Amino acid sequence: MAVAGGDDRTVTLTLGPNRHLEAAAARYRDPPPERLPQKRVYLDSVGRANDGAPNIVVILFDDMGYGDIGAYGNPLARTPAIDRLAAGGVKLTQFYATSPRCSPSRVGLMTGRYPVRALSHHCVFAPKGSLEEMALHANCLITHILADEIRLPEILSAAGYRTGIIGKWHLGKEPGFFPNELGFQSAFGPMHSNNKKPFNIYRNGTVEIATKDVDQSRLTALYKSEAVKFIEKTGDGPFFLYMSHTFPHEPHHADPDHRGHTPGGESGDMIADLDRNVAAIMAALERRDVAKNTLVIVTSDNGSGFVSSVGNLRGRKGDTFGGGMRVPGIFHWPGRLPKGKVRAGMAMQIDLLPALLLVAGIVPPAYRVIDSRNLMPLLTGKTASIHDYLYNFTPYVGGAEAVRDEHFKWRAPALMEQGDFYYPAPMPIHSTFSRPILTDIHRDNESYDLSNRYPADQARLDAALKAFRAGLDENVTGRKRD
Amino acid sequence: MAVAGGDDRTVTLTLGPNRHLEAAAARYRDPPPERLPQKRVYLDSVGRANDGAPNIVVILFDDMGYGDIGAYGNPLARTPAIDRLAAGGVKLTQFYATSPRCSPSRVGLMTGRYPVRALSHHCVFAPKGSLEEMALHANCLITHILADEIRLPEILSAAGYRTGIIGKWHLGKEPGFFPNELGFQSAFGPMHSNNKKPFNIYRNGTVEIATKDVDQSRLTALYKSEAVKFIEKTGDGPFFLYMSHTFPHEPHHADPDHRGHTPGGESGDMIADLDRNVAAIMAALERRDVAKNTLVIVTSDNGSGFVSSVGNLRGRKGDTFGGGMRVPGIFHWPGRLPKGKVRAGMAMQIDLLPALLLVAGIVPPAYRVIDSRNLMPLLTGKTASIHDYLYNFTPYVGGAEAVRDEHFKWRAPALMEQGDFYYPAPMPIHSTFSRPILTDIHRDNESYDLSNRYPADQARLDAALKAFRAGLDENVTGRKRD
Repeated sequence: MAVAGGDDRTVTLTLGPNRHLEAAAARYRDPPPERLPQKRVYLDSVGRANDGAPNIVVILFDDMGYGDIGAYGNPLARTPAIDRLAAGGVKLTQFYATSPRCSPSRVGLMTGRYPVRALSHHCVFAPKGSLEEMALHANCLITHILADEIRLPEILSAAGYRTGIIGKWHLGKEPGFFPNELGFQSAFGPMHSNNKKPFNIYRNGTVEIATKDVDQSRLTALYKSEAVKFIEKTGDGPFFLYMSHTFPHEPHHADPDHRGHTPGGESGDMIADLDRNVAAIMAALERRDVAKNTLVIVTSDNGSGFVSSVGNLRGRKGDTFGGGMRVPGIFHWPGRLPKGKVRAGMAMQIDLLPALLLVAGIVPPAYRVIDSRNLMPLLTGKTASIHDYLYNFTPYVGGAEAVRDEHFKWRAPALMEQGDFYYPAPMPIHSTFSRPILTDIHRDNESYDLSNRYPADQARLDAALKAFRAGLDENVTGRKRD
Repeated sequence: MAVAGGDDRTVTLTLGPNRHLEAAAARYRDPPPERLPQKRVYLDSVGRANDGAPNIVVILFDDMGYGDIGAYGNPLARTPAIDRLAAGGVKLTQFYATSPRCSPSRVGLMTGRYPVRALSHHCVFAPKGSLEEMALHANCLITHILADEIRLPEILSAAGYRTGIIGKWHLGKEPGFFPNELGFQSAFGPMHSNNKKPFNIYRNGTVEIATKDVDQSRLTALYKSEAVKFIEKTGDGPFFLYMSHTFPHEPHHADPDHRGHTPGGESGDMIADLDRNVAAIMAALERRDVAKNTLVIVTSDNGSGFVSSVGNLRGRKGDTFGGGMRVPGIFHWPGRLPKGKVRAGMAMQIDLLPALLLVAGIVPPAYRVIDSRNLMPLLTGKTASIHDYLYNFTPYVGGAEAVRDEHFKWRAPALMEQGDFYYPAPMPIHSTFSRPILTDIHRDNESYDLSNRYPADQARLDAALKAFRAGLDENVTGRKRD
């Protein structure tokens, strides 16, 4: 990126070329014809889920920080239902979103692969023509999740699950990329965040509530009744409910019926609304007597925005520090998971896909690179660690800018000057301007550079990161060569 | 500020006019002739300090964060000498720099007034023609501390103190604005930060060590021997030593003689070097048997940069959150201050000037607005609070963007759009894009917005901030009308 002074009142930023990404996008935006049959072959091979396969409820909050709920130490929020899930299940303390921003994070969750494989690690799917699309994501050439990506709900559908999304999608908003066209048998909710217009609420690809009629303060309650209805009416056989909340993404709107009931102001009240939603889902599961065989997962798509809490972590939404990417991770499944356990092994939301498939007896797709590992052995305590390395992608100035193992995090030298695949977005607002530091994840909040003290670890992590980047340069989408 | 898209590879930022600041700067850059005699009159009126007036040693670190020393909970630093001062004196837990950046912060420290009064709240005195000067501070029209500002060392000199600065000045670098011309009888050190070139070391306005000969890893040791020499050779009568460190400003350089001796890597080792400097100063005071009547103050000019620790506070250098502005504050004076006390009342570095003058029996200047309060009653425990309100100035997007009382902090709506006195710098890099939130300073790290819960407090703080801003618009320099 070049910064040029104009007269003393203007500054012009100019981008370098981005040949890798442009070439990749040209090749893969519309996937080559041979890719779709390959995906079809996999989906046809899935077969029925095991008898007794669990129901799955993924409760994904939007911009809920690591410190936003009681079970993670928030002094101002009141989240008794979520805290009960933690007490009755497993709580992860080193659980990561795949990106510190909304859309890429959801790409990772839905595909079990780093979002970069869908060329989306730096893309937030914003309304066409918005300032955000123009200024922050001018180098994002993708406007939806790629058609040949295999998405979790497609696989579960193929295995006989009833699949439903309630809430925010944020992986495309054009015909062909609505959630009901990408694996969800039923879909209710908005296509993107609550600070964007239009903010229509869709049902199965059709606008059901127009922007002007949306009362955001009642949205969490509306999702609640939709979720309860889904659980009540889904019939026999396993189901997958993706409860993808609109909050605590800003602006915050608490339900007026409960406003003022927490010490946390509008934000605390709104988080209590979210907790009531969780309580209603658990009650509906109990009423149907399926709670015991339902795996309920509570997590968030990235760290806190401006208002809400990352706890004591460094950074916020948008940063590859913990505050941007480390999120709550609570797993509740009375039939299979222990009660009240806390695990400190690192994991990422990509790891949900193999875990959810395997517990249902479904073989994960293998004809392309899958970055994830099965999360279950970490949850059950069979192993303390499932990954050698996890990579952190910044949505702004480049690609994989940091790598973690179970002890350290290495932030590589900034990629701002390379003018290549990992080149910067035009305005590095909120960017961390990453600098090369090695931090001990368990000793401080990513502050002190320990490179000099642990040179061998620094070299090992740097080599891992370089190899990973080289692999991306070679074959970014991770499609195996035919 | 306007953001205009060019083609899809350029973005141009254009500033609005800044008529207030330009008008003020035109009037005050060279102060009106009647101002200098007014200052002369005050300095002539000071008279001799009290018999038995204490020696004063202000140890100011550069970019040391709230969490960078042992006494404030750092798990990776080793600071036994500083910790001993805390154990033997008073530690403040709500002590603020006057700005989250270097130069403005030092303006506040030296004048006892908010830096805005010297039109410097957003100015970092950078080498002429540097990118920083061009891009980040294009709206800074001041290149040095104003000539008619009354500076602490001038007053102490007038009262018979021997005054010396060792280390970084950062309040001008042209003839006429060297520290030895602005109140310090002796001066040794660089004019600005260690990441800028040229980085000459001056003695009394003359280059003693040229940039190419400066070994930054030996700088803290060099300051140490200069400080010890100052204390040993200052003769009888009270002295004021301003030990203004170059570190932990980045880049970090630890002394090779001690490298690897702490668990904190290069940064931890470098902080241990700083601690050894403090130990040497204390030992020199003991050897001269003057420690008992010496007030030693340990603090920092703003929060941590990229590498080092803000503890659990939000934000970093540049931010008006605690991480940018809350700093260590340790006060050691065996003759007058209690031992091992921790005070939670809020104070700011502007409060040093009246405190230091009053303990020496000197009447502070009164012919202009003094924003500060005497710190001593807070230190001794006579009172729990010395300020109703403290104002936080951002160095980037505007002026006073936040106000604190002893319970709350109110961040006012962003001033980005006003195009007026508080208008933005051209590139709001690192800016927090402040949003209106009321936080309870004692319940979380400035995360949850409690405006709805405490509307009366929010209104009260907002009114205080508006009145303060109006006062600045009316009479920014706080010079009383003749």
